[in-house]
Amino acid sequence: MTLNSPVASEQARFIDGVAAKLNGFLSEQRDVMATVSPDVDSLIGSISTLVTGGKRLRALMCYWGWRGAGGLADDPDIVTAGCALELFQAAALIHDDIIDRSDTRRGGPSVHKRFSQLHETNGWALDSEHFGDAAALLTGDLCLSFSEEAFTDIGSRAASGSPARRIFNVMRAEVMAGQYLDILEEVAGPVRDHAGSVDRARSIIRYKSAKYSTEHPLALGGALAGAPNDLLKAYSSFSLPLGEAFQMRDDVLGVFGDPATTGKPAGDDLREGKRTVLVGFALNQAKATEAALLDRMLGNPDLAEDDVERIRHLMVECGALDATEALIAQLSTDAFEALERLPLDEVPLLALGQLAEAAVSRAA
Amino acid sequence: MTLNSPVASEQARFIDGVAAKLNGFLSEQRDVMATVSPDVDSLIGSISTLVTGGKRLRALMCYWGWRGAGGLADDPDIVTAGCALELFQAAALIHDDIIDRSDTRRGGPSVHKRFSQLHETNGWALDSEHFGDAAALLTGDLCLSFSEEAFTDIGSRAASGSPARRIFNVMRAEVMAGQYLDILEEVAGPVRDHAGSVDRARSIIRYKSAKYSTEHPLALGGALAGAPNDLLKAYSSFSLPLGEAFQMRDDVLGVFGDPATTGKPAGDDLREGKRTVLVGFALNQAKATEAALLDRMLGNPDLAEDDVERIRHLMVECGALDATEALIAQLSTDAFEALERLPLDEVPLLALGQLAEAAVSRAA
Repeated sequence: MTLNSPVASEQARFIDGVAAKLNGFLSEQRDVMATVSPDVDSLIGSISTLVTGGKRLRALMCYWGWRGAGGLADDPDIVTAGCALELFQAAALIHDDIIDRSDTRRGGPSVHKRFSQLHETNGWALDSEHFGDAAALLTGDLCLSFSEEAFTDIGSRAASGSPARRIFNVMRAEVMAGQYLDILEEVAGPVRDHAGSVDRARSIIRYKSAKYSTEHPLALGGALAGAPNDLLKAYSSFSLPLGEAFQMRDDVLGVFGDPATTGKPAGDDLREGKRTVLVGFALNQAKATEAALLDRMLGNPDLAEDDVERIRHLMVECGALDATEALIAQLSTDAFEALERLPLDEVPLLALGQLAEAAVSRAA
Repeated sequence: MTLNSPVASEQARFIDGVAAKLNGFLSEQRDVMATVSPDVDSLIGSISTLVTGGKRLRALMCYWGWRGAGGLADDPDIVTAGCALELFQAAALIHDDIIDRSDTRRGGPSVHKRFSQLHETNGWALDSEHFGDAAALLTGDLCLSFSEEAFTDIGSRAASGSPARRIFNVMRAEVMAGQYLDILEEVAGPVRDHAGSVDRARSIIRYKSAKYSTEHPLALGGALAGAPNDLLKAYSSFSLPLGEAFQMRDDVLGVFGDPATTGKPAGDDLREGKRTVLVGFALNQAKATEAALLDRMLGNPDLAEDDVERIRHLMVECGALDATEALIAQLSTDAFEALERLPLDEVPLLALGQLAEAAVSRAA
């Protein structure tokens, strides 16, 4: 505990700084929007609610990447970078929830659901669901712009041509590409070969999640602090397997997790038709009839709890859950071994170790 | 014609420069995406197709704003700014078409339609329409990021805290706010008072279109060239009424235009339930029974050509079309009078006059 407290207190200070900066930023935006029309306030309100919650994983990876590369603890630039990442994550979640038709987010209604409820409460005309989706689409666009605005506010360290700007650009493009691969696999997976399904799922994970959630944020923090390429490469050898393990843990929780803890109904990933590594193993390891059954059930929005339970059973029986857990364990080992080799001071090293531990062993 | 040719040749050179730069930019992005997966190429392809067409109104406003403020004709920065605006416009169109459920754009299929067709052609599983919307949503996000990336590429003139960056930020936020007001009025308009409908429609036009299509691009060009505030204000007194007239012309064409010329089915704005200034005048000037009929017909996706014809007739009979045309004429006069007062050299002045003429008197 004595070793942990410098990490905890420093981390708390940073998180508080990010929260305060987000508040200030959104309050300024609120003033700009108020000159347009009071009706627009609900867009900012939705963004505000969303950025209040969350684990701040990306902001923290960025912070410790910065500290590990010699950045100072109380530099406002890293707080601004944390805000930009949180705003980007909020934008991604808003659009993701439209795509995945998820009505809940962090235990409350998702943004499109909030707007369709606003529609119903006010007794407005036409289709409340379409209005909700359209309003959330625009809110996500606004939030994406805010994220960029915040990132540019960093100033010279994030200027055109800087390593940090390059990482931020690649991060955005890759996560959108990864999300496309994800929805593509949902529809094209059933007509593609089962043999390639684990590889395809791993590629999706890499781009839509691992690079975006851990690798790029850590590198971004490092680059902002002027880290040499060697350090950025060493960061990747830790953060990429970590991010893959993190997303696979998420996928396992999506099927086997406790809704009370995750804040999301269990089985929604199956109803949406997500073809995760776990699903990939099941398609390959289950008996042909069971694999065919799974193939048919995936993407059925009306899947009952019984069906979900049947899929769970199948995944356990054929060893898909074990195979996924083994892969998570292997990737975690890779990540922790790479972490030990990182040439960092004690505090950033400890902090990254704790973040990594939380990412791969979490229950929510 | 002798007076016109310096405008035409200079403008053609700029447009060619923007097209070449867009090609180069998207080809680099294509290479980045190819490292992710060949499947992602269709996202870049959709963006490419979209930025190939169009009137380049925003890029041209920006260019002449720049030239009017003393910027040099062959400066690469203004070409880059033009690209950023074209990419932003493409992103807005992609998302707009999802919101408006428009299946055609510039005479071809809209991006979400392209993706749902890709789904159908390949015989993929699940819902082709949902896949199309989701893929287009992601393509729009990617394009929005590209626009920002291009804008930052301008470098110091668009750096954090610069007047140009402030205009770009406000432009993005305001257009999204304006689009929200637009979809809000579609659903809330029927339960709000008819008396305020023209004012509300004008506010929507101002934010979703006039500021975005003409005022901000012109100011952006000026700001990039270091224009003093006085000139930026003078620009606004011309470009804001022009943009309002431009959008009202668009709204009239949406109901009365020739589909062969506009590239869009006539009456789609009515089917979508757009509450334009034209509709606002009709709701106020038509007999109560006819206004009630119009209120009921707006937003009905199954509106037949007969119904559309009936609404056209109603709009002519009650004087709503005349009132709208009178307002367009008034705003055009305001714009042209302000144009004459602009302290510009002959070529930029001529060019802006031609752009303005094309914007308000067009048939498509």
